Amino acid sequence: MDAAAPSAVELVAAVTERLGEYLSERRRDAAYIGEDYAELTAGLEEFVLRGGKRLRPAFAYWGWRAVADPEATASDAMPPDVLRLVSALELLHACALIHDDVIDASATRRGLPTVHMLFTDLHRGRDWHGNSEQFGLSAAILMGDLSLVWADDVVATSDLPVDAYRRVRRVWSDIRTEVLGGQYLDIAVESSRAETVASALNVCTFKTASYTVSRPLQFGAAAAADRPDVQAIFHELGNDLGVAFQLRDDVLGVFGDPAVTGKPSGDDLRSGKRTVLLAEALERADQTDPVAAKLLRTSIGTELTDDQVRELRSAIESVGALAAVETRITELTHRGLDVLAAAPIDDHAKVGLSELARLASTRSA
Amino acid sequence: MDAAAPSAVELVAAVTERLGEYLSERRRDAAYIGEDYAELTAGLEEFVLRGGKRLRPAFAYWGWRAVADPEATASDAMPPDVLRLVSALELLHACALIHDDVIDASATRRGLPTVHMLFTDLHRGRDWHGNSEQFGLSAAILMGDLSLVWADDVVATSDLPVDAYRRVRRVWSDIRTEVLGGQYLDIAVESSRAETVASALNVCTFKTASYTVSRPLQFGAAAAADRPDVQAIFHELGNDLGVAFQLRDDVLGVFGDPAVTGKPSGDDLRSGKRTVLLAEALERADQTDPVAAKLLRTSIGTELTDDQVRELRSAIESVGALAAVETRITELTHRGLDVLAAAPIDDHAKVGLSELARLASTRSA
Repeated sequence: MDAAAPSAVELVAAVTERLGEYLSERRRDAAYIGEDYAELTAGLEEFVLRGGKRLRPAFAYWGWRAVADPEATASDAMPPDVLRLVSALELLHACALIHDDVIDASATRRGLPTVHMLFTDLHRGRDWHGNSEQFGLSAAILMGDLSLVWADDVVATSDLPVDAYRRVRRVWSDIRTEVLGGQYLDIAVESSRAETVASALNVCTFKTASYTVSRPLQFGAAAAADRPDVQAIFHELGNDLGVAFQLRDDVLGVFGDPAVTGKPSGDDLRSGKRTVLLAEALERADQTDPVAAKLLRTSIGTELTDDQVRELRSAIESVGALAAVETRITELTHRGLDVLAAAPIDDHAKVGLSELARLASTRSA
Repeated sequence: MDAAAPSAVELVAAVTERLGEYLSERRRDAAYIGEDYAELTAGLEEFVLRGGKRLRPAFAYWGWRAVADPEATASDAMPPDVLRLVSALELLHACALIHDDVIDASATRRGLPTVHMLFTDLHRGRDWHGNSEQFGLSAAILMGDLSLVWADDVVATSDLPVDAYRRVRRVWSDIRTEVLGGQYLDIAVESSRAETVASALNVCTFKTASYTVSRPLQFGAAAAADRPDVQAIFHELGNDLGVAFQLRDDVLGVFGDPAVTGKPSGDDLRSGKRTVLLAEALERADQTDPVAAKLLRTSIGTELTDDQVRELRSAIESVGALAAVETRITELTHRGLDVLAAAPIDDHAKVGLSELARLASTRSA
């Protein structure tokens, strides 16, 4: 280990350890509320600890590191209070995932049953009274709420100086209001079948870029120092890298290998997700290939055979949408990395962030 | 108006005014996230402002008043920053109601459509793509989350001294963890058909007493002064008055006049709610009237005709459960009011609180 900076693996492990400590402490403190409740709090602990890339805490850590006092970081590269603070983002994320799975009626996440499915099974297995699905849904709503509440409590009980706390709170307020906006825009755009690249990009900005990259970077930096210049830079590069990250996700949702992504092949085509990739394909097909345009409009979001998925993929590719999105990913990534290279921040943070960015935009799952 | 203390009506109006200001400010600030999102933020504003007794902010106001500096309150009985802080409890409550309506699949609240119904209709009215009910459910989950987030932001941006802020945050952490516990216990107890008075009382403690009375009182008091003695007294009397409040609700849910309560007659009997009243009836019937016990067990929570509702009511009355619960309400109310009378707190607060308590335990809706 380079004493001066943690590796990606070390960072994930350290954040996960903090989360484990915090959740087991909260669970113990809540035991007096009743035995049944312990099932919900234990379920949350299990959900948070069972996996995840800890991407948002990692960006927040590097955001902190970017402007933290070098003397302090030299003696302790991962101070416990910083790890604790950035782990709030993972609890916020748990809420977003648990509620999103209810919204999308998803049965699995990372190859395991989603929370509402687990509690549906619990209800059914005990032969309880009433509707098992409704119980599962209700438990998932409450567990997501609890994760949001405990995330807020992490931020509120951080031991920051008053000024730093105020800065952190402002970002914390923005990230939560924006991610809920992104989630709502996502379902509204899907329902209204909005077709423009602009509306797909707007969802992408708030549901992913701001939520996964810009705001976490700003959150960490706000804790370390009063640096409006760096906040502005993080807004800019975070948006570029975050959109690239989501576009990679969109490409994987259509062209990804199910064995690697863990999701069914062509998942986004079946669900009718309004991605930038799809919007690109529709805009291009309207101009050059009306047959493909009609095919896309009538098939996306319906039950599809594997042959139909293959047909749609080749339509998206032949009108040039895949290439356009790949180009966009490359351009955004380069632009983001250029801004990063020129930023007046700590060198270790630059290295850590460019690794994270490459990981995010070139991954295959 | 007594310059020294607001009336119940004045307090409700002042809290509602603050809520209106805050929500319209947040809504304006969030406009950049997208036009569709404005529907969700406007929907929250409408839901919060369209009604409600503002009971939790009122208890918190009197909790603050109980130990606030008398000289300060003489010059301003309702300081804006105090009203702002206590209104956070109403936003928390909006989240609880919106999510509870999804959990209970309720179509109406206070005679108006619930949030998930409103957004189901919006989806349907626009002839949008996909399942209207799922869209309504999703919008309600996100709106509840947003209300929880904005509630937390109110507390976080209060201008309290550091010590007061820490005390307030502790109560804020407890009240949210407890109310989610109460909600989960409620659905677990209903599903498992737990029959004891003890388990019904436990739900009642966390879902109502602590959430509606004790914690709001402590929340307000924590903002005003460091008074562990008063915190302990509020815990005790809040529990007594809060349980009495919920027991009154349980009685109304079975014996209330639909024209006054706005809910269908015998609502709780049809939904199978595990109230203290029902637990009392079952425990008593088991000992004295096996026919009534069997009737209760086989009918509660099923489709019931009005005749069956009348039959169940008379069974609950004849085994002595109604009288027992009425006695309990009276005893708890008296005990709570005695503790209040002897408490070392401001006299105006004593008057305000005993009015609120009487209102809660003798109301007919």
